[in-house]
Order: sequence, then C-alpha cells, then structure tokens
Amino acid sequence: MNNKHTFENIAKIKTEFPTKFGIPRQSGLIPTLKGKIVFEPKYRNPEALRGIEGYSHLWLIWNFSESESKEWSATVRPPRLGGNKRVGVFATRSPYRPNPIGLSSVKFEGLCNEKDGSVSILVSGADLLDGTPIYDIKPYIPYTDSHPEAVGGFAEGVFGNKLTVVYENGCETIFSGDDKLSLDEILASDPRPAYQDDAERIYSFEFSEYKIKFKVEEKNLKVFEIQKAE
Amino acid sequence: MNNKHTFENIAKIKTEFPTKFGIPRQSGLIPTLKGKIVFEPKYRNPEALRGIEGYSHLWLIWNFSESESKEWSATVRPPRLGGNKRVGVFATRSPYRPNPIGLSSVKFEGLCNEKDGSVSILVSGADLLDGTPIYDIKPYIPYTDSHPEAVGGFAEGVFGNKLTVVYENGCETIFSGDDKLSLDEILASDPRPAYQDDAERIYSFEFSEYKIKFKVEEKNLKVFEIQKAE
Repeated sequence: MNNKHTFENIAKIKTEFPTKFGIPRQSGLIPTLKGKIVFEPKYRNPEALRGIEGYSHLWLIWNFSESESKEWSATVRPPRLGGNKRVGVFATRSPYRPNPIGLSSVKFEGLCNEKDGSVSILVSGADLLDGTPIYDIKPYIPYTDSHPEAVGGFAEGVFGNKLTVVYENGCETIFSGDDKLSLDEILASDPRPAYQDDAERIYSFEFSEYKIKFKVEEKNLKVFEIQKAE
Repeated sequence: MNNKHTFENIAKIKTEFPTKFGIPRQSGLIPTLKGKIVFEPKYRNPEALRGIEGYSHLWLIWNFSESESKEWSATVRPPRLGGNKRVGVFATRSPYRPNPIGLSSVKFEGLCNEKDGSVSILVSGADLLDGTPIYDIKPYIPYTDSHPEAVGGFAEGVFGNKLTVVYENGCETIFSGDDKLSLDEILASDPRPAYQDDAERIYSFEFSEYKIKFKVEEKNLKVFEIQKAE
C-alpha cells in the first residue's frame, strides 16, 4: 500500500518577513499584515479563481519550509508556556510535525492583475515567511469552519499579555500607515523567545526590508534602532 | 529548486462510510457522525497526544484518496449550484484540486486505549470516507481559526433546504441512537447528486454496514429498503 504522496507547490506567498524571527505565532493576530500569493507558472490560470471574490476569508495550506530539515518530535515546548513544559505535537501548531504542513486563515483583500497576464491573490493577516510554498487555497466557509464556542486548550488567554512599545532615537518616523500598525502589533505581541528574560539583551528581526533592534524590560519594549537591512 | 514534497500518512480514519456517495458535503454538518483516528505503527506514540484533551475541536488534514487518479481542473461544477454553473476550483472545496488535500474540523470526543498499547482519537462530525489517510492533526484555536463574521460565497444559505424523510417497509427500526440521528440528517441533507430530478430513480449508498435505498419526489425522501451490505 502506498503510504506516501507527493505534492507540488502551486504558489508562493510574498510577505514582509524575510526571516522566521518576528513572525506572529498564529495567523490573523495582526490584521494589517499584507501578503500576495503568486502562482507558479503551471498554475497561472485565472479561471481557477472564478467566484473567489464571494468569500471574505481563505485557508492557506502551506509548507513549513524553514523547518523541513529538522526531525519531528512527539513532544514540543511551546514558547507561550515559558519553553519548559512539554506538550504533544498534535496538541500544538508547532512546525516540528511528522508532515510539516501549515494551516492559516487569512482575509481575502482582492485580486491583482500581473503584467504577464496572470492573477495574484492579495491577503491580509498572513503569518507566513516570505517565499513560503503554498499547496492549496480554499474558501473559508463559516457554516462549517467557524466554531466560536470551541475551547482552545493552553493556547487560550495567552494573547492578552501585551507589551508597551516605545520607539527611541527617531525610530518612530520610519514606518507609517499599515506597516506601522503591523509593526506596533508584532512588537506588542512580544516577538522574543518566551523563556528569555534579560533586560540587557538586544533582539533583532527583519521586517519590510528593515532590521528592527529592541530590548525588553519587564512589560516595556524599547525599539532603539531601525536600519535598512543588507 | 525543489517544487515537490512528499508526505506520509500518519493515521487512517475509521468512519461509517465505505463509499463516497452519501457523505455529507461539508464537515461538521452532522454532529452525531462518529470517527476513530488510528495511527500508523510508526506514529503510535501516545506522548504526541499529550494535552490534546484541552481542546474541544481538531483540524484534520487528509487525502482525497478516492479522487487521486483524476486530473484537477481549473473550474468545477458544485452540486449545490445545480451542477450547471462553473466556479474556480480555489473558490470551492472540491476534491479535484491541484493537490488533493482535504481539510475538516471535527469535535474531539476522547482517546481510546487500544489492545496493542497504542492510543486512538475519537472524533465526531467527520465527513470522511472510511480508511481516509490523514497527514496532520492540529488543535482548533478559536482565537485565530473562528471567524463567525466571515462571508461564505455561494456556499452560504444552501444548507437550509432540508428534505422530509419517511421510512417505509419497517426500515425505521434498523438503526437507533446516534446512528439513527446521523442517517436522518444525511438523508434530510439530500445526498443525491444535485442536478438530478427524477422521482422514479432509485438511489442507494452504504452506511454503517447497510445499504440504504431511497427515492426523492420534490421535497420528500422515501427510504424503502435497508439491507445488510455484502
């Protein structure tokens, strides 16, 4: 019996995140984050999108491409539990799964006609690394997909603990509009690996072609440098 | 660049549906439908499930195994639109997709200790064919997965049109309890291919080791025979 199946990338997503660090831990937490789904040449058929405007949200099924070389493990230590409690991998959305498949709901923002005649999909709320391979795009059907009454295990109630973000040295003027709102939210959501607690430590990550450097002391996050990334 | 990825079945689901016909068109429509997820030998590690009891709902990512040999097409004709209107495949949950990956939310009903020491997962609301290969199991996190405000395109409002179900010739006594509730609901949801309208036509499908035969005249579905399947 054939126990394996081969899937092909149908598209890649373009986002503001060139590296994994800084990416929100769950999709949809930062609604202003923009992404564009660009189809691979073989799948550039605008007919395949007919009727997609009728939906407000989409599912993306994608590949944890950065984690692929690592082995899966039966238990993982979620950063949100302080990094010292082990939980079964199927009780988490960790990338270190037997099959490194990611699942994210995003908002459908529109279609974009590219110069070559192909059509891309604009989305927001995407928590994906720039260049992430996409396997499937499905409409979000609230009748069967939305369960507001669902109980969320240990992931519940951990998103409320926001940091206060302060920009220093003129850093506040570099971004504006949605990019600024997105960055505010990424920082307030605490992009540190959660088991670290060192007020002197300098953290950095890349966002929208810039390198963001910050420190955290208790509940205060200070951005002290934003530089064009190399 | 590697454009393909190979995934392995981690489990199979056991359900009451030996054939595709009769399966609800979307997951969760029939909450009494039971399923059991049995892990493949390589993945029989109960540690991987630690903490899963904290969630009320799970995502299953699975393979449309019955559709695999067919080619994908850019547009499909959803049965719910009468079978004569073409819609882009990415605006549907059709199985004839570039990668035949299915996505279903189910209710977590408990864990089951098997004789061989392995642990299976009991779920309900599963719309999957018996023996469907599973690639991934993820917790449903309402904070990021539930969007009750989402707009559902053409799939909206089409689930309300129920048929009136009548059992004849003693057929009403064969099932009881949850199985009876499930069957009532499957039949009321109209399991016919939607573009057929012939009061004399006999339809049949298999459910829980029985063959169910019925006819439909306007809004009335008559079950006239239920026999043990061969």
